[in-house]
Amino acid sequence: MVTNKHNHYMDLAIQEANKASAIGEVPIGAIIVRNDEVIASAYNRREIDKNPLAHAEILTIECASQVLQGWRLLDCTMYVTLEPCPMCAGAILQSRIPRIVYGATDPKAGCVGSLMNLLNDTRFNHQVEVISGVKRDECSSLLKDFFKKLR
Amino acid sequence: MVTNKHNHYMDLAIQEANKASAIGEVPIGAIIVRNDEVIASAYNRREIDKNPLAHAEILTIECASQVLQGWRLLDCTMYVTLEPCPMCAGAILQSRIPRIVYGATDPKAGCVGSLMNLLNDTRFNHQVEVISGVKRDECSSLLKDFFKKLR
Repeated sequence: MVTNKHNHYMDLAIQEANKASAIGEVPIGAIIVRNDEVIASAYNRREIDKNPLAHAEILTIECASQVLQGWRLLDCTMYVTLEPCPMCAGAILQSRIPRIVYGATDPKAGCVGSLMNLLNDTRFNHQVEVISGVKRDECSSLLKDFFKKLR
Repeated sequence: MVTNKHNHYMDLAIQEANKASAIGEVPIGAIIVRNDEVIASAYNRREIDKNPLAHAEILTIECASQVLQGWRLLDCTMYVTLEPCPMCAGAILQSRIPRIVYGATDPKAGCVGSLMNLLNDTRFNHQVEVISGVKRDECSSLLKDFFKKLR
């Protein structure tokens, strides 16, 4: 049941990732869920926005904090297709999100298990529950197919 | 001469920090300089913006990328009054800023020398020159005085 729910929400994040590839952006998508309601969804828009911050995770955090009218995203879960980079892992810490679920690992820049894990470092004032590998192959294929087409 | 320049620009970042404390925000300020021109300046606005991302560094990066109309902040130096947190250090990596100068260290959350150094980790695809301790005492006093008044 829990797995079904994770799969369902990851599908929504994958839909977001597909919107990114449709406009030539690296296909990464994210959503934020609170009390079984999707309160934010976004996809990577770095090139189109000409903004190094415009990762899917950052955009969903910004949206969710406006929806909740506060900077603490309590009771929220983020679903994201790729393991977060240091900026996004740090943004997750800043927003006090209690739980994230991600799909594919990022061996080159992932900071939630691959190169390091910023979300379980007890020196920071917040730690985050992490579930990884949900729809891993599908999330990973999105990226592989995108870069294959670019070549 | 170089030191004088660093002191001058750090003074501008301190002016930004003072704008934050004037509205009850934790006093942290930042500017981004390119070819001896200030192209972005900002201060921490987390509470007023109800946004966990609204750190001074993030806001200057967003502004500078709009000014330069691109996500790569080449030839830029960021001056910031406090050692960056993981989110901001990660954002500096994402924006490809080649150099940052900071004032006070942050032993609780600083990720540019205190808890770790995300900006010289050669596993990432970008490294950043770091100069620390410029106007350290002044930057540090700003924060101490702010928290003293809160109590």
